[in-house]
Amino acid sequence: MTFTTLQNQLVPKINQALQAFLDSLDFGQSTNLKHMIAYHLGWRDADNKRGGTGKRIRPLLTLLCTGSFDSDLVSAMPVATGIEFLHNFTLIHDDIEDRSPFRHGRATLWKKWGIPQAINAGDALFSIAHLVLLDIAGNCGNLIAVQAARQFNQVCLHLTQGQYLDIAFEERDEVALDSYIEMITGKTAALIAYATKMGGLIAGVDKHKQQLLTKFGESLGMAFQVQDDYLGIWGNPKITGKSAASDLLTRKKTLPVLFGLRDCPEFRSLWEKPRHNTEQVNRMSQLLEDCGSRTYTQEQSTRYTNQAFSSLGALFPINNEFTHALNELCEILLNRKL
Amino acid sequence: MTFTTLQNQLVPKINQALQAFLDSLDFGQSTNLKHMIAYHLGWRDADNKRGGTGKRIRPLLTLLCTGSFDSDLVSAMPVATGIEFLHNFTLIHDDIEDRSPFRHGRATLWKKWGIPQAINAGDALFSIAHLVLLDIAGNCGNLIAVQAARQFNQVCLHLTQGQYLDIAFEERDEVALDSYIEMITGKTAALIAYATKMGGLIAGVDKHKQQLLTKFGESLGMAFQVQDDYLGIWGNPKITGKSAASDLLTRKKTLPVLFGLRDCPEFRSLWEKPRHNTEQVNRMSQLLEDCGSRTYTQEQSTRYTNQAFSSLGALFPINNEFTHALNELCEILLNRKL
Repeated sequence: MTFTTLQNQLVPKINQALQAFLDSLDFGQSTNLKHMIAYHLGWRDADNKRGGTGKRIRPLLTLLCTGSFDSDLVSAMPVATGIEFLHNFTLIHDDIEDRSPFRHGRATLWKKWGIPQAINAGDALFSIAHLVLLDIAGNCGNLIAVQAARQFNQVCLHLTQGQYLDIAFEERDEVALDSYIEMITGKTAALIAYATKMGGLIAGVDKHKQQLLTKFGESLGMAFQVQDDYLGIWGNPKITGKSAASDLLTRKKTLPVLFGLRDCPEFRSLWEKPRHNTEQVNRMSQLLEDCGSRTYTQEQSTRYTNQAFSSLGALFPINNEFTHALNELCEILLNRKL
Repeated sequence: MTFTTLQNQLVPKINQALQAFLDSLDFGQSTNLKHMIAYHLGWRDADNKRGGTGKRIRPLLTLLCTGSFDSDLVSAMPVATGIEFLHNFTLIHDDIEDRSPFRHGRATLWKKWGIPQAINAGDALFSIAHLVLLDIAGNCGNLIAVQAARQFNQVCLHLTQGQYLDIAFEERDEVALDSYIEMITGKTAALIAYATKMGGLIAGVDKHKQQLLTKFGESLGMAFQVQDDYLGIWGNPKITGKSAASDLLTRKKTLPVLFGLRDCPEFRSLWEKPRHNTEQVNRMSQLLEDCGSRTYTQEQSTRYTNQAFSSLGALFPINNEFTHALNELCEILLNRKL
């Protein structure tokens, strides 16, 4: 079975679980709070073609990992649902913190309902994520539920540490490469690693396999992020859907930029200009290439990608349909045809 | 032993537990995130005499309830600590949502570090609250830990529902009394009820006692809030430390005001004026008295107070030092000499 076939089966189930859990909660006179959450999740006022429910990559990873151990997907659903709620909670608060007016082509929560209500709706979703996650106790027992909840909160804390650095970096002229790696580990890789690890915890695998799953998820998350940084400068606009060198245009301090700021004074002095024309952007891109930033970023992306596939191979030597789909999902996410 | 003696013993222990848990966490390069949380909890830059650690009423209630059942306070400490962290998380976000520049005589987190970092620090504290709470598994087992965590998140959700209504009410001309009661039940009473109930869950009491404890905490929280509303208009400025009728001056839509808006057209037309002089404030206060709002508010306060003491009496017929202190704490909070 291909990934797409499984995805078409599982994503509706994930959406159904999310919606059913939200519907099971009593909102009293605060029905509009529920409305806000439903809107953010893509179910209400999806008045725009691009509006939608998101790709649900994280819960899919949990389900595919559980399935790869030939374990029952039903037991994994509370955790998968909790992870997706948590991810969406972070998006609500990130959008406020970044002042982003749009997400998936629709107005963000704070833009539509104001900052106070959006902060509060995020907090509500944070609690909802925990509530559904604890339902794991029903099929997996209280010990697993406590372990899953504890690690969930360690990841939440890790996410806020990554986010702290991300916000702090905006005000810094220079950011050390290792600080940047720590930031994306918290912001991107931690939750993906949790998603894959939980797939195994639910299937009852041993500590060693749990560690491999964590390594797999972490490498996958890092590879995805570093590749995203690469494509933000050297991606083909026809494929990325963004303008060429878009991250240079929007002045994003991504990995290749930080490398250039450190190693190429000419890049640095161009970067520090308040505005850039197309010629300057092209020049910056070329300078990054000349100073070895492009090669470095590509190497990092390849290193994490190889780590991810190597962990994956060590985890699931016996192939079932879920393992096939998991491999295919990684191929798609990491775009090996790069 | 009097309440003050026990308070002087227990509050330092609570502060120690809070600080030790925060210190046990790895913040990597995000040490300033830890600094922000420590500042909010009153331990850092307490450069102002009024700056301090807060009264820790909620964890005290948990410990006193556990002690009243002759149970070990050590087992209750993770929950007590989690409740205090959670309470402080709500304060960080409330301060942003209300745009309050000061708390305990010091700049609020958002005022000092900006809204994005303050939202994120609140989220970190939310996760920390959950983490320490789950430590209850060590002494009380996984079943109790799952129950405590589930109810914790139900309370978190309830808090956000109360907060949703509170923010929404600001934009409304009129708020129904039952909506107001629902709001303060979520914002104030839910967490206090959790604090008292958990004191019993940890002590291993039966469902009936847990229900009584919930009722006790809920009534205590409601009585405290309604009394606060009463004192906001008719409190003695020498005792409250605020100006006479301060809630009328600051246009707070408290219970007596909502009663007046509903029942007294003359009050309403005065209230709707954009500014009020002292004479008008006195007139509004008098109008509220004439239309029965003062009596109504006093009755509600008395009703909740009686409920609280009646639940307390039914819970702890055998008096130990903790029961004495618990009674005394309620006397102080509900200021029965009103």
